[in-house]
Amino acid sequence: MATVDSTASRHVSAVGGWDLEADVVVVGLGSAGACAAIEATEAGADVLVLEATGAGGGLSAMSGGLVYLGGGTPIQEACGFEDSPDNMFAFLREATGPSPDEAKLRVFCDDAVAHYHWLVDHGMPFHPGFSPEPGLEAPTEDALCYSGGEDAWPFDRIATPAPRAHKPKVAGKGGPFLMECLLGAVARTPTRVEYDSRARHLVVDDARRVVGLVARREGRDVHVRARHGVILCSGGFVLNDDMVALHTPALARAALKLGAVDDGSGIRMAQAVGATTVRMDAAECALPITPPRKLVGGIIVNGSGQRFINEDTYYGRVGQEALLRQGGEAYLIVDEALYEVNAAGFQASWVCETAEELEAEIGLPDGSLVETLDSYNRGAAEGRDPRFHKHPDFLRPLQGPLGAYDLRVEHTIYAVFTLGGLHTTIDGEVLTPDGEAVAGLYAAGRTTSGLAAYGYASGLSLADCTYFGRRAGRRVADRP
Amino acid sequence: MATVDSTASRHVSAVGGWDLEADVVVVGLGSAGACAAIEATEAGADVLVLEATGAGGGLSAMSGGLVYLGGGTPIQEACGFEDSPDNMFAFLREATGPSPDEAKLRVFCDDAVAHYHWLVDHGMPFHPGFSPEPGLEAPTEDALCYSGGEDAWPFDRIATPAPRAHKPKVAGKGGPFLMECLLGAVARTPTRVEYDSRARHLVVDDARRVVGLVARREGRDVHVRARHGVILCSGGFVLNDDMVALHTPALARAALKLGAVDDGSGIRMAQAVGATTVRMDAAECALPITPPRKLVGGIIVNGSGQRFINEDTYYGRVGQEALLRQGGEAYLIVDEALYEVNAAGFQASWVCETAEELEAEIGLPDGSLVETLDSYNRGAAEGRDPRFHKHPDFLRPLQGPLGAYDLRVEHTIYAVFTLGGLHTTIDGEVLTPDGEAVAGLYAAGRTTSGLAAYGYASGLSLADCTYFGRRAGRRVADRP
Repeated sequence: MATVDSTASRHVSAVGGWDLEADVVVVGLGSAGACAAIEATEAGADVLVLEATGAGGGLSAMSGGLVYLGGGTPIQEACGFEDSPDNMFAFLREATGPSPDEAKLRVFCDDAVAHYHWLVDHGMPFHPGFSPEPGLEAPTEDALCYSGGEDAWPFDRIATPAPRAHKPKVAGKGGPFLMECLLGAVARTPTRVEYDSRARHLVVDDARRVVGLVARREGRDVHVRARHGVILCSGGFVLNDDMVALHTPALARAALKLGAVDDGSGIRMAQAVGATTVRMDAAECALPITPPRKLVGGIIVNGSGQRFINEDTYYGRVGQEALLRQGGEAYLIVDEALYEVNAAGFQASWVCETAEELEAEIGLPDGSLVETLDSYNRGAAEGRDPRFHKHPDFLRPLQGPLGAYDLRVEHTIYAVFTLGGLHTTIDGEVLTPDGEAVAGLYAAGRTTSGLAAYGYASGLSLADCTYFGRRAGRRVADRP
Repeated sequence: MATVDSTASRHVSAVGGWDLEADVVVVGLGSAGACAAIEATEAGADVLVLEATGAGGGLSAMSGGLVYLGGGTPIQEACGFEDSPDNMFAFLREATGPSPDEAKLRVFCDDAVAHYHWLVDHGMPFHPGFSPEPGLEAPTEDALCYSGGEDAWPFDRIATPAPRAHKPKVAGKGGPFLMECLLGAVARTPTRVEYDSRARHLVVDDARRVVGLVARREGRDVHVRARHGVILCSGGFVLNDDMVALHTPALARAALKLGAVDDGSGIRMAQAVGATTVRMDAAECALPITPPRKLVGGIIVNGSGQRFINEDTYYGRVGQEALLRQGGEAYLIVDEALYEVNAAGFQASWVCETAEELEAEIGLPDGSLVETLDSYNRGAAEGRDPRFHKHPDFLRPLQGPLGAYDLRVEHTIYAVFTLGGLHTTIDGEVLTPDGEAVAGLYAAGRTTSGLAAYGYASGLSLADCTYFGRRAGRRVADRP
């Protein structure tokens, strides 16, 4: 039952001597760790970062680079979109629930414009342009796009739609450039970074206060003292098969697990000193149906041949529904006018003249697709979608011949990562199940449950990492 | 953020002296604690039970008293049902998944007949009679009923249907009698029981081994030494609003939370010494549509006016689907031939001549109920349900006038309790997130994640509590 890499805590009396010391010890040099280190050093603390691999970046460097920001950023204003902290909060509370961490949402929405300026001031430029393709970083340098179904039902009725995903100024995928900016900012501080150093055990004193950690480097234990505290920014657990099976088993079925060092070691080290985890079942499951956007004019059905969502919402929401609530079985049905091999290479696995033939080919229940398509087409002809409220722009009756994309989890790309993790305050303090802070221990990023409690929008994780990384860094630096 | 009742661990050096001592200290005198105590004393250990309330029983005493047993028990044989451990395992693996604890399922299925005899030998009689009403304890003394949709799709194709819920020999609700039997068995052993004693903190030594606990009695701390170990049998967490909000928020909406002392204190005490929790989102949500059984001849639709399950499966499965995957919105539609106020008092909130009027009254999307009913009626007329495979016995076209029962979670009874908890071995050893045993600490029952990983069948929790309570008791007693 025991996994290889124990993360049990060590008592300080077992530490012969400290190999390294700092006020603040940060575990992991992704976007959360980088921002924690920058803030802590700027607040006057002596900071040491331990990075498990040979270079900083983490999963952030592999991402699209979208950062969820809003409430009226200069980029939103330049592109002609109105937004406010309250409007942003109204959207996020609904989109990330049920029962999201409202304290985190509130402080983030109130500070999002200031956080934008902080990123700019620390060397991350944004180009004021809007990309009409939602959910995905523009091929151009344009910063802004919709990324969470803000302009789709039901969110368009809950808050005024505003695009909020901000990509740093670079053409195409923005993650590498985003981390280049943040690592550059780290390099301009006196932060020390130790690479190839994998944190394994927290060190506690008699009062169970975290006073350091043991890291593994070149096959040897390195003992690191943290005078103020340790900040865990070591990612989630999507690459830990045992943890996935026990907490969010549907993810095991997804082919593309988005992780860097995301083995859950930070979460486990904290649990060993009494921390609790929350929302461990939560996960993002992007199902990249678009681009091209016109494909949302098709219908997506489950294994019973029923629609289950408005196809024009965020494709991460479609993926969550399909994988977590429809058993990982879905099919996208289009007609000839819509058909195209999409950007991710998705193509039709079946093509038939009629819905009746198509449902038989796919193996859907008799009559199910015929009925669903009839119903959809009747509404679409009138510009209506009474069940799921797809926007009229994408409503048009589908005519044979029909093609079906196989969106079953075992047959296509679901890009997944975990959203559950340590329970933390808005300042990164790691909590016990009783809601008490573990002395000397802090965390940020995907090691924690953050802005995206259950639902998701592209850019929320980088927003969470950078903003709450900063807050944790400042909090630990300020400790007496 | 901090809740009132801290469960932080205490170091043994802070314990001035022990007020009580035993080889084995059991926390909680529900069915798990009772069985743990019986086994441990029979294995020669000196056992002390701490019960938070003034009497034993816990949630088990408030239950229907069904115990899930099978593999060919004398009761099954007397009633003419064939079963085997492998057949039972095949059903449970499918019904309790995804990714259930197969080690627990395997050992339980192999031992279920022996466990039946153990219960009988310890004073729990069973009457060999079969009750045709599934999911619910018979009004007679008859023991046996279907309780997990064993004879409904898809399980009837995965394993040979066999009823496995066994009620002790008493007319009607069996929980009080079941606990009377078990508490009688405890009373025949030298087990000591301290009532009104609420365990609050585990006590650990320098090696972080659990060596006792601190309980609260009459406003004072009582220090209890456990020479072999502590067994936590203190229930789940459905009565802890904070934990529900953080782990399984949909349950907060349910009116009927099935709990006794289920405040999560056992789970939290264990977390404080490094234990991990698993499947904390899992929950049972019984939606007592039947009896009468004829009501499953109606159709259940969600907020989009779509069916989502075969109505003749276990009503706990219907409730889980409705609450956890359909947003807590469902309606049962029947015609005049089926209509009846059910045993739980459910009655029609709307009655209309046609589906069109009814969908408008309920507020379902235009045309949705008309289409769903047309589709259902077409199949039913041919004895077919191609989408959800309801058994032909319950398929008959529904004719107006139609009545609709309001099954929205805020408008009816969902009876819920938590299934997630501590991660334990088949012998009750409490595990860290790395899969290592916490020395001196054991658990059973709803404090743990057990036989019912996600799915449920009536009787599984009492089976889990009694069987794995026994195993934990024996394991701790046998410790050197």
